[in-house]
Amino acid sequence: MEKTNFLEERLQKQLEFIVEVDKLKHIYRQTYLADGSRKENSVEHSWHLALMACLLAEHTLVAEIDLLHTLKMVLVHDLVEIDAGDTYCYDEQGALDKEEREKKAAERIFNLLPAEQAQELWALWEEFEAVSTPEARYAAALDRLQPLLLNYTSRGKSWQEHGVKKSQALKRNAPIENSSSVLWTHALRILDQAVQKGFLAE
Amino acid sequence: MEKTNFLEERLQKQLEFIVEVDKLKHIYRQTYLADGSRKENSVEHSWHLALMACLLAEHTLVAEIDLLHTLKMVLVHDLVEIDAGDTYCYDEQGALDKEEREKKAAERIFNLLPAEQAQELWALWEEFEAVSTPEARYAAALDRLQPLLLNYTSRGKSWQEHGVKKSQALKRNAPIENSSSVLWTHALRILDQAVQKGFLAE
Repeated sequence: MEKTNFLEERLQKQLEFIVEVDKLKHIYRQTYLADGSRKENSVEHSWHLALMACLLAEHTLVAEIDLLHTLKMVLVHDLVEIDAGDTYCYDEQGALDKEEREKKAAERIFNLLPAEQAQELWALWEEFEAVSTPEARYAAALDRLQPLLLNYTSRGKSWQEHGVKKSQALKRNAPIENSSSVLWTHALRILDQAVQKGFLAE
Repeated sequence: MEKTNFLEERLQKQLEFIVEVDKLKHIYRQTYLADGSRKENSVEHSWHLALMACLLAEHTLVAEIDLLHTLKMVLVHDLVEIDAGDTYCYDEQGALDKEEREKKAAERIFNLLPAEQAQELWALWEEFEAVSTPEARYAAALDRLQPLLLNYTSRGKSWQEHGVKKSQALKRNAPIENSSSVLWTHALRILDQAVQKGFLAE
């Protein structure tokens, strides 16, 4: 009986968290879907990274990537945006207080869970932010490559709206090189083609 | 040099698939988001299942769930809807040719990938459909519990639009019991409360 109450109390907290994170479906990014019809939200972005993580691990510089760990990281990496919002990657003003806003958000959102699960999510999010492990470097590479693919496929719609230049896109996408030379070579090719086709300013 | 060409050829196929599956973000389900503001799409649903899978494994009847395998299954389980569309769970007409439509879709979509990855995704999807393993039973339970939570939180909006009765919802959610008595007990409680509050017809 005691075990049942304990499990039910845990389940209550878990379900409260699970309903709360539904709000991430309302957080829209600056990137458009591949067909350019609308912007994508942070949940769609996170799912896309998770699927990519399953398929592209063979291209990483490190032979053995812990895929489960990577998946957990990309699934939770944007949860703080529920309170902190999505800070556009070329927004220098927004970047100033991004860390503070996101830490406060993590504190509220992760702590809806039972303590040890809250700690696990905190640790995953911090690892992603610190880019301190092969899995975090892989996650960071995917986090750059996915919007790059969508920007290119949507004919640079978001780049043009924000007047992004190739030099900025190169700097933004540089973390791909720290995880995979194959993906980086391909990313450079996409950026070159984007300039050639007029999707991205030289 | 040969190795590079081989990897690049694989990468081309993988990226073509990754851009193609962006279309799943356009496939809308009958379930509303928790706040009832709009329907959710199949990508948002899949991400939600993946996050739930990470948090609720302790409640399954089987002691050892392969979480990585479960995550892969829920991430890909709806990809066939890109061609086949989402068949509403209470749509008896749509259910008649669902299997045929989805098999054709799987054939086209998975085969964009290199052969052994296509086979892996086929196998994951077939396992999910057959509900033949503890991981597939867990995935099926989450696939029922997630819309149940959203239906309840959105005050039964989708149930009411489709005139769903408690007996239908009970039958629909029954697979939860095959994976977890804790989750099933909770699901029954939610359905009772939904009837009491007038969200779901008796």
